Amino acid sequence: MAIEKLTGNMLIAQSGGPTVVINQSLVGAVLEAKKHKEIKQIFGSLHGLKGILEENLCDLGKETTANLELVAGTPSSALGSVRKKPTPEDCVKVFQVLQKYNIRYFFYIGGNDSAETTHIINEEAQKHGYVMKCFHICKTIDNDLRENDHTPGFGSAAKFVAQAFMGDNLDNRALPGVKINVIMGRHAGFLTAAAALARVYPDDGPHLIYLPERPFTLEQFVADVQAVYAKYKRCLIAVSEGISDEQGTAIAAKFIKEVDSHGNVQLSGSGALGDLLAKEIKEKAQISRVRADTFGYLQRSFAGVVSVNDAKEARLAGAAAVKFATGGKFANGSTAIKRKPGKKYAVTIERTELKNVAKETRHMPDAFINKAGNDVTPAFIAYAKPIVGELPKIGRLKAAPVTKAR
Amino acid sequence: MAIEKLTGNMLIAQSGGPTVVINQSLVGAVLEAKKHKEIKQIFGSLHGLKGILEENLCDLGKETTANLELVAGTPSSALGSVRKKPTPEDCVKVFQVLQKYNIRYFFYIGGNDSAETTHIINEEAQKHGYVMKCFHICKTIDNDLRENDHTPGFGSAAKFVAQAFMGDNLDNRALPGVKINVIMGRHAGFLTAAAALARVYPDDGPHLIYLPERPFTLEQFVADVQAVYAKYKRCLIAVSEGISDEQGTAIAAKFIKEVDSHGNVQLSGSGALGDLLAKEIKEKAQISRVRADTFGYLQRSFAGVVSVNDAKEARLAGAAAVKFATGGKFANGSTAIKRKPGKKYAVTIERTELKNVAKETRHMPDAFINKAGNDVTPAFIAYAKPIVGELPKIGRLKAAPVTKAR
Repeated sequence: MAIEKLTGNMLIAQSGGPTVVINQSLVGAVLEAKKHKEIKQIFGSLHGLKGILEENLCDLGKETTANLELVAGTPSSALGSVRKKPTPEDCVKVFQVLQKYNIRYFFYIGGNDSAETTHIINEEAQKHGYVMKCFHICKTIDNDLRENDHTPGFGSAAKFVAQAFMGDNLDNRALPGVKINVIMGRHAGFLTAAAALARVYPDDGPHLIYLPERPFTLEQFVADVQAVYAKYKRCLIAVSEGISDEQGTAIAAKFIKEVDSHGNVQLSGSGALGDLLAKEIKEKAQISRVRADTFGYLQRSFAGVVSVNDAKEARLAGAAAVKFATGGKFANGSTAIKRKPGKKYAVTIERTELKNVAKETRHMPDAFINKAGNDVTPAFIAYAKPIVGELPKIGRLKAAPVTKAR
Repeated sequence: MAIEKLTGNMLIAQSGGPTVVINQSLVGAVLEAKKHKEIKQIFGSLHGLKGILEENLCDLGKETTANLELVAGTPSSALGSVRKKPTPEDCVKVFQVLQKYNIRYFFYIGGNDSAETTHIINEEAQKHGYVMKCFHICKTIDNDLRENDHTPGFGSAAKFVAQAFMGDNLDNRALPGVKINVIMGRHAGFLTAAAALARVYPDDGPHLIYLPERPFTLEQFVADVQAVYAKYKRCLIAVSEGISDEQGTAIAAKFIKEVDSHGNVQLSGSGALGDLLAKEIKEKAQISRVRADTFGYLQRSFAGVVSVNDAKEARLAGAAAVKFATGGKFANGSTAIKRKPGKKYAVTIERTELKNVAKETRHMPDAFINKAGNDVTPAFIAYAKPIVGELPKIGRLKAAPVTKAR
């Protein structure tokens, strides 16, 4: 018996923070959809949920394959993005729009908030008995989606962080001092941890890595830096923007509050945490050359630094969602990247329930963090290496010392 | 008549801020030196002048060509660097060391401060009648050396800035708002100006570029941003860290002073200028989504982003210095990159007097800056393009609008 095909139009959108490979997922889904006759028109919503609410749609069926391929290799959400959770009123409106345009295939590319949005829209459709396939396509540089071994966007962002640390380690070695680099990731430390991939020689930095998964104290931080500095006469540090104290309060927030209570500077910019950690080291450890950089938005959108596996898997995730939707087996779900067992790195894209991915985030497993809570373990390196892929080759002079002349 | 060859040892060192291609110059000089029999031993000084003063030298003659080639492709001064101008006592000591190790060929890779150091060492040797070839090898990401069309290190740093802006422009397009990026270059705006190379489509950012060569006022800045924002509903801005007011006082310094006078936060880190410009826009232009990133040290040392021409020319400059020194025509000088006239991009490395490069810096020519002082001209783009080389291809959806359904 032939499986009954659901006929209608498709709508796809991108949401949340852009990544370097988010358009691979978009293009993967569009090219796969073109293969399915039951999918009539392929619409894209501009700026995610906002575009649906405002009926600001574009016709992706009119894009040439050549242009789609060019877009696939271009960083940051080509359809535009949004940070918006639907209110109950939004849900009513979204559902009206989906009906009006006869959308029977709905795809939302994003992180756990986007999975939650997809879940809400799916429930709204079901409530009204409106038959629609509703899928979330995984994405986030934070790598914090449950059910996923890792997520599209993380590999390339991690590659950027690793390459930045490779260069910065050499910079710090040439002009020694303490260097603090603040890395994205509010609740999960994966991206900060990726700095460890920069190490080539035993004395290479990052010498210390601070993650949101472990409580951070300024006292221990200063002591750690002093110990490294005593050994190497320099210290390179990777700090997650999300580092928090025992009570779970973000250090950045505490600092900002402290300054606010003095009544003058509103430190809302992204440089604040790094600058204030640098100040702490200067004062408490009495080291004069202390610098801080905050990697900021470069991590998620930098053109030209792409992990090959990340790009490939982002494409596969987009295509997989359409395959799941058209396969007749599932009405809804989220794509999840699973790593195949075995020595050789390989993944499969599986379907999981929307509620399994929505809302909550995944954290670094304990096995990836050292006992002292200031570094990663070899298990993390083994996990992250194939996701990030090849890194630049780093050389060092043998530098045979010259015997001092008399 | 055969030219009399000066026989003795060679000493080479690296100084000032590292670049991605500074080791190309080192390796270019060492490999060229190996061809000249009159150069006996090839020593490297660790951490520039500091290594000479402490007699902390290494034997570069013992490096294999394979390892030198690996080092050439590695960012940041492989010999280590230093920021140090020699005192009169240092000069005496340096001269003693040079004599002790029979150094007859001295090479110092660096910017205008390093040219000045080379000049001082050369004068000291001449004063004592010590016959020595003394050459400065040009280098600086700031591109501010006189006599040079451009300098090794600039092309790769400019490529990093351009690629960062390509991605960040798309990020800003996906999630609209005002984005300020602070770029290195205390006195010359070349590196900040390179952000303009990121533009592909007419509405692409950077929409505004602020250089140290033009006076900066907060009033005009806010007005400029408001005008762009009114047009595009977003605004991407490139700001040089060295922007200054009419009196030549750095805006960063003014801000920091202002905060200090309130008595609490010592904003010495690098995020301060960006954060405070963002604050100004939020308050005065009443735009809510305003972000600032400070590119920091990533610009000069990022592993894996290299301009092909930059790497090539850095290598040539190192080799040229040794050729000048062994050629018998000049006892001292600095290498200068000159652009050949004609449509096809090509350069020659010429020799110039040390004093022509030392101390003072070169600024952006007026022809490279627009009338309003908030952008570059097409002449700058034409100048910078071949120096930076190929950039990632950027695509955009045609995004044919869907007619609103009834």
